[in-house]
Amino acid sequence: MTRTITHKLDPKLDLMLERVVDVPPNRVWAAWTRPEYVKKWFTPAPWQTVDCEIDLRPGGIFRTVMRSPEGQEFPNAGCYLEVIENEKLVWTAALTADYRPQNVPSVPLFTAVILLEPHGAGTKYTAIAIHGDEEAAKKHADMGFHGGWGKALDQLVALAKKM
Amino acid sequence: MTRTITHKLDPKLDLMLERVVDVPPNRVWAAWTRPEYVKKWFTPAPWQTVDCEIDLRPGGIFRTVMRSPEGQEFPNAGCYLEVIENEKLVWTAALTADYRPQNVPSVPLFTAVILLEPHGAGTKYTAIAIHGDEEAAKKHADMGFHGGWGKALDQLVALAKKM
Repeated sequence: MTRTITHKLDPKLDLMLERVVDVPPNRVWAAWTRPEYVKKWFTPAPWQTVDCEIDLRPGGIFRTVMRSPEGQEFPNAGCYLEVIENEKLVWTAALTADYRPQNVPSVPLFTAVILLEPHGAGTKYTAIAIHGDEEAAKKHADMGFHGGWGKALDQLVALAKKM
Repeated sequence: MTRTITHKLDPKLDLMLERVVDVPPNRVWAAWTRPEYVKKWFTPAPWQTVDCEIDLRPGGIFRTVMRSPEGQEFPNAGCYLEVIENEKLVWTAALTADYRPQNVPSVPLFTAVILLEPHGAGTKYTAIAIHGDEEAAKKHADMGFHGGWGKALDQLVALAKKM
């Protein structure tokens, strides 16, 4: 089945990483949706993801704990909104399990959209971070969105090649 | 098709209105999902809903403008999360169109879950407001959740009987 899956970008509020990678969509999907894989690629080294919980359904939790090189731990919990296997994954940090609103004042709040399309033997990979205002988008960009998400994607691809 | 549609209540954080009404689920659904109907019942009189926009899909906008008896207008925008015809409607005020996070500091932020089940010739109607903390739940209760949502439901039923 071919679907048209798009997101209308707002260049002032959204950040996007788009790249063709040489691993197929089902492996990218596995890397994103299985905790044992997420822990291996999700945070650019030397940061680590030391815990991960995934309840892969709309309303299900996506929880991670990141650890800084100095050993400080940063727990995050979000909520899946759309789960279309091998094609589209959406979750938001504005909600936690069962769509419960949550306040996360220290982090630029965003909704993430991951789009996967077959591209030859590989995948056209699109990751979008959707923010509520320009301040959050700028803060996220300044924190290194493009470099960070790009480096994490390198790690994902390296892992996916070994699956 | 019979589904098991439940929400695990947190009594400290959630407010619930449950009632059997003598109109069938498809009319309750119509009242909730068509702007011309929403404008007729959504706000307890003498408040009015003077505008309503509905894009009935996960990620679609649910926007209303309420008007106080003194003529002051209060715009609200939320985002649909689940849309299962005649059975379940979920939207959140934590997000707006296309899952974009939004800050609505003046209102107790909540996600709403509306569950409809056939009950004889009528409907078992369950409305749940899910909050992120006890303060928001209490504020919403103090604002008159039970009376307000109950009176609005009376208006919905009166409208549905005339459909």
